[in-house]
Amino acid sequence: MAKNTNIRISLPAVCFVWQIAMIILFGVFVRYNEESDTRWIEHRRRKNISTNLENDFYYRYPSFQDVHVMIFVGFGFLMTFLKRYSFGGVGFNFLIAAFGIQWALLMQGWFHYLDDDGKIKIGVENLINADFCVAGCLIAYGACLGKVSPVQLMVLTLFGVTLFAVEEYIILELLHAKDPGGSMVIHTFGAYYGLTISWVLYRPMLSQSKHLQGSVYHSDVFAMIGTLFLWMYWPSFNSAIADHGDGQHRAVINTYLALAASVLTTFAISSISQKHGKLDMVHIQNATLAGGVAMGTASEFMITPYGSLIVGFCSSIISTFGYIFLTPFMEKTLKIQDTCGIHNLHAMPGVIGGIVGAITAASASESVYGQEGLINTFDFKEGGYQAAGLFVAIAFGLVGGALVGGILKLPIWGDPADANCFDDEVYWEVPEDEDENMLSSHPNMNHARGMPDA
Amino acid sequence: MAKNTNIRISLPAVCFVWQIAMIILFGVFVRYNEESDTRWIEHRRRKNISTNLENDFYYRYPSFQDVHVMIFVGFGFLMTFLKRYSFGGVGFNFLIAAFGIQWALLMQGWFHYLDDDGKIKIGVENLINADFCVAGCLIAYGACLGKVSPVQLMVLTLFGVTLFAVEEYIILELLHAKDPGGSMVIHTFGAYYGLTISWVLYRPMLSQSKHLQGSVYHSDVFAMIGTLFLWMYWPSFNSAIADHGDGQHRAVINTYLALAASVLTTFAISSISQKHGKLDMVHIQNATLAGGVAMGTASEFMITPYGSLIVGFCSSIISTFGYIFLTPFMEKTLKIQDTCGIHNLHAMPGVIGGIVGAITAASASESVYGQEGLINTFDFKEGGYQAAGLFVAIAFGLVGGALVGGILKLPIWGDPADANCFDDEVYWEVPEDEDENMLSSHPNMNHARGMPDA
Amino acid sequence: MAKNTNIRISLPAVCFVWQIAMIILFGVFVRYNEESDTRWIEHRRRKNISTNLENDFYYRYPSFQDVHVMIFVGFGFLMTFLKRYSFGGVGFNFLIAAFGIQWALLMQGWFHYLDDDGKIKIGVENLINADFCVAGCLIAYGACLGKVSPVQLMVLTLFGVTLFAVEEYIILELLHAKDPGGSMVIHTFGAYYGLTISWVLYRPMLSQSKHLQGSVYHSDVFAMIGTLFLWMYWPSFNSAIADHGDGQHRAVINTYLALAASVLTTFAISSISQKHGKLDMVHIQNATLAGGVAMGTASEFMITPYGSLIVGFCSSIISTFGYIFLTPFMEKTLKIQDTCGIHNLHAMPGVIGGIVGAITAASASESVYGQEGLINTFDFKEGGYQAAGLFVAIAFGLVGGALVGGILKLPIWGDPADANCFDDEVYWEVPEDEDENMLSSHPNMNHARGMPDA
Repeated sequence: MAKNTNIRISLPAVCFVWQIAMIILFGVFVRYNEESDTRWIEHRRRKNISTNLENDFYYRYPSFQDVHVMIFVGFGFLMTFLKRYSFGGVGFNFLIAAFGIQWALLMQGWFHYLDDDGKIKIGVENLINADFCVAGCLIAYGACLGKVSPVQLMVLTLFGVTLFAVEEYIILELLHAKDPGGSMVIHTFGAYYGLTISWVLYRPMLSQSKHLQGSVYHSDVFAMIGTLFLWMYWPSFNSAIADHGDGQHRAVINTYLALAASVLTTFAISSISQKHGKLDMVHIQNATLAGGVAMGTASEFMITPYGSLIVGFCSSIISTFGYIFLTPFMEKTLKIQDTCGIHNLHAMPGVIGGIVGAITAASASESVYGQEGLINTFDFKEGGYQAAGLFVAIAFGLVGGALVGGILKLPIWGDPADANCFDDEVYWEVPEDEDENMLSSHPNMNHARGMPDA
Repeated sequence: MAKNTNIRISLPAVCFVWQIAMIILFGVFVRYNEESDTRWIEHRRRKNISTNLENDFYYRYPSFQDVHVMIFVGFGFLMTFLKRYSFGGVGFNFLIAAFGIQWALLMQGWFHYLDDDGKIKIGVENLINADFCVAGCLIAYGACLGKVSPVQLMVLTLFGVTLFAVEEYIILELLHAKDPGGSMVIHTFGAYYGLTISWVLYRPMLSQSKHLQGSVYHSDVFAMIGTLFLWMYWPSFNSAIADHGDGQHRAVINTYLALAASVLTTFAISSISQKHGKLDMVHIQNATLAGGVAMGTASEFMITPYGSLIVGFCSSIISTFGYIFLTPFMEKTLKIQDTCGIHNLHAMPGVIGGIVGAITAASASESVYGQEGLINTFDFKEGGYQAAGLFVAIAFGLVGGALVGGILKLPIWGDPADANCFDDEVYWEVPEDEDENMLSSHPNMNHARGMPDA
Repeated sequence: MAKNTNIRISLPAVCFVWQIAMIILFGVFVRYNEESDTRWIEHRRRKNISTNLENDFYYRYPSFQDVHVMIFVGFGFLMTFLKRYSFGGVGFNFLIAAFGIQWALLMQGWFHYLDDDGKIKIGVENLINADFCVAGCLIAYGACLGKVSPVQLMVLTLFGVTLFAVEEYIILELLHAKDPGGSMVIHTFGAYYGLTISWVLYRPMLSQSKHLQGSVYHSDVFAMIGTLFLWMYWPSFNSAIADHGDGQHRAVINTYLALAASVLTTFAISSISQKHGKLDMVHIQNATLAGGVAMGTASEFMITPYGSLIVGFCSSIISTFGYIFLTPFMEKTLKIQDTCGIHNLHAMPGVIGGIVGAITAASASESVYGQEGLINTFDFKEGGYQAAGLFVAIAFGLVGGALVGGILKLPIWGDPADANCFDDEVYWEVPEDEDENMLSSHPNMNHARGMPDA
């Protein structure tokens, strides 16, 4: 059945209306904070701050830029692996991230940064948090990749950011849980949010676009760009909003080590699981990152270097096995079609990260942290609260995903027919002579062009 | 008509002579400044500077590296979109940028950094300014992409950098205008410089290479690498040489927001302008960056967060419409062949940026900036001088472009015939073509697959 | 002859055993140092350090991330140039680097960072040094690219890191030589280590896989990603562990200038050496980096800006000529098959760097450096020790390479048959249909190739 995928009205309408709404809301609510305002110089004198370097900008900006690259190039290129959905992978990632960061600045601002004068005062830390918030929605996109319209993605992001800000408020502010790298708040929530949406939007006839679900040689190389920038900059991700000084320093070391261990275990499991021991690019592109996800909650803790290696070691074993056994099982039995396998890369490692965080926090002692160190790292001993935070993240993902999935099921969003999934032809002007190139893999390309809407 | 495109003598000659000239001139003029010299430690004590961190290196280096990536990967890959000119796009960008930064260190040095002893004293800020200076020439290259020889590009760069240093001196030193991100000095000048050259070098029979003027699927994905690194690092571009402390901090926030708004409006206009609402990669690759260009002059000002969103919103609408209507019109009517559409990405948003800067400066008040803040941000109230700066930039672009265009029209530079434009075959040893390769490797792959172990 | 390349047992075994060994050894030996430990706050008070910014993290982290990108994206993508070995190029680079950094933290820790309590205390500087150490092995991989199994690469890395730590200890600790960017310690050692291994593993019948030894159009563009990230971030590489303040600042300037000069000379030699003056991507991808290699030892010295230009100028001439004349000669006469031409990019420029360092150190004078500057830069005047260091690096490369080559010659490592070298099919699940995809940009490319000038 050919669906109407013409988004000529709906996409521009959504983009314009929401962008104008952002402008108005920013006009009413958002201002510079005292470190990004010209009055900083007076602030410095008042607070008796000796140097401009004490401006938080110099503590956070390099990490912010690394996180920024992860969001746009990392997530974007990781989703270019499909043979004919690279435009959609990197392009729609670009669109929803650019919208999401604006909405996140407002939502997180209202919950965390509201000043006495009713204004949201922003600085570089807000930009990092906005990128973090958007990451949850990009993870969710991974489950839906190739099966939804850009309009649906804008809706997914609008609600995703909203839900994120609320669960983040509950977990960090009310439960006083720690989650600097967002194993719970970002990865667990984002993954269950996306998986539930994908479950609601289940497509029984998706096999009609089976010929487009694989990769080609060069699209796999493009995806490695995403993988590597995520892998390299993950230490910045887990340390970007950690405490100044030893906090950021330690978070980097822990994440760096966890990721290093992930690579070896991923290669091992990938090889042992294949006939003839050949490596599978899907595993290398994804499971090598599991250690970063799993270190998100405990990154700042005194988990010790070898503890970090163990976290990376275990999470990647589980993640790789997930790609081999769980993904097919989930599609067949649970009716969850998870294009990028986010359950293996974000859900399971995220839950592991939450548990690791809870255990490490519960077992934190003054002998290890030192008296002041213990106070700085934890507001108070909080193993139980950490665990509670994990459940909040899962709950928000499942319930939120069900609601939003229901909304996205409405037949008004211009999503593609089962036969046209994973195909850039539906939403993009694809250069002509390449489809001839692709002809072999594309009996349906012409069909796509012959569709009522195309 | 087949032209002689053999550059075996001319290109090496130019590269050698100019590189040796650089070595001699650096020997005569260029030295380390007190922050990069071993005497820094004495300087520190004299100036009573408490820590090595006060060395400007630590304020500027992370931003410098981001700018450096924009120049070589950003501009370079943005120009790989043509189906058979990716080598020339990224390769010649590499060549002229590497020459340009050397010449820029000298030219800018003579105008801005000449010490009492007649030496140019350089530090990290000079490296940033050299990258900025080169950006103007890379923008100009965008208009000529695929139609000029590398020798012509070296000439374009030699004069481009020279002109840049002079107009920059007039605008910043004589007119005391502010332009930290170079909306006027870099983008407006560079764009009109390149467009005028392209107009002088008009090729009536260019349609003979029409079959090579498009992109292919993967070349569009390569171009997205350029787009994203430009987009992500633009906040560093507009803040790299801004004032320490709140200046850099605010420039980052303003640019980040303008760019975010640009993405939504670009997607909206791109979709609404196409039959069936399909998105055009040309727009996504370029117009999403207009906000960064337009925020170059006012980046440091108290333009407010929503003001930044408005700047990005408007500049991308104009930029995208430019690609749809203006580029074809300019080619047909004005005889300006603008390969990358720099008029839409740099000229118009650059002018907008200049105007925005003038208005913001004119309306700057002590109530908003604070007494000291006003003094720090502006040497004095300068709306009119800002506007004057814009005209200087345009004038230098037009006049300089006409002169250099005339020089480049001489039949001695080895430029390609109309039928051979946009073709790497002319200046590069291109690997025996892809398909034969793939074919030849084909049997052997089967063989590989048929091997006992495989 | 078809060999057994099934690594389904050996690769997972090696990965698991070594990763578990790492976990145990880290558990016994590795701890946080006082700057990454929660007791940092107490340390700060004791040492009377005024701000968290004095934590070495803020001096080193941005440079570390740049180096990290060079190791994984730079080296990785530089090795994607082969038409059918991109997975192996970037993938195996990823595997051995991730293992190598763990082993390097231990080996370098035992030699340099062992605390009184018998523990290795790590911080960000250790992470940088681990990346440096691994670089030596990745250089060696370049000589063997496409001809060895991942298991052999793991062995190459295990011994390579071990040898590196010892020679580094001798050169830096015993000889008190300076080598912040590793011209000797990293590049010279790594190159001769790899070349000797490649010589021991000489394959007389390698021509059987000749059809896979070239690049294709897009694989050359992928390789440019590696080239550019190496080129752009090399100033960070040579300054990452330089002295705080002017040391890092000067190292950046010197490297930046040397690299700029390298580009022009590489283009010149490449063009002049080819019939019709066409440029060769192999030269552009590699020889443009020679200046960074050659500036590794003297990066911190007062070599002067024009001195840096001269270093880049000369090293790239030699490097490019190496690709043109030496590589074929070495393969034919010396029986050394150097896939990536590391002899031209790392061995010769590395030796040049060592010599430049020795001369600059020998001629260092108080008049140039200032009294304190001279003491800070050199522990003592050390021209002769620098030269000695160079010989140590070469000796370790040759002897170590011979030993390890002998081990790798054993018929147990699953290396490919001569006919299957440079083919991802051997160790990777390669997507089926790429060649068919490519079938049809063919006609138009023929047309392009049929043009008078090509």
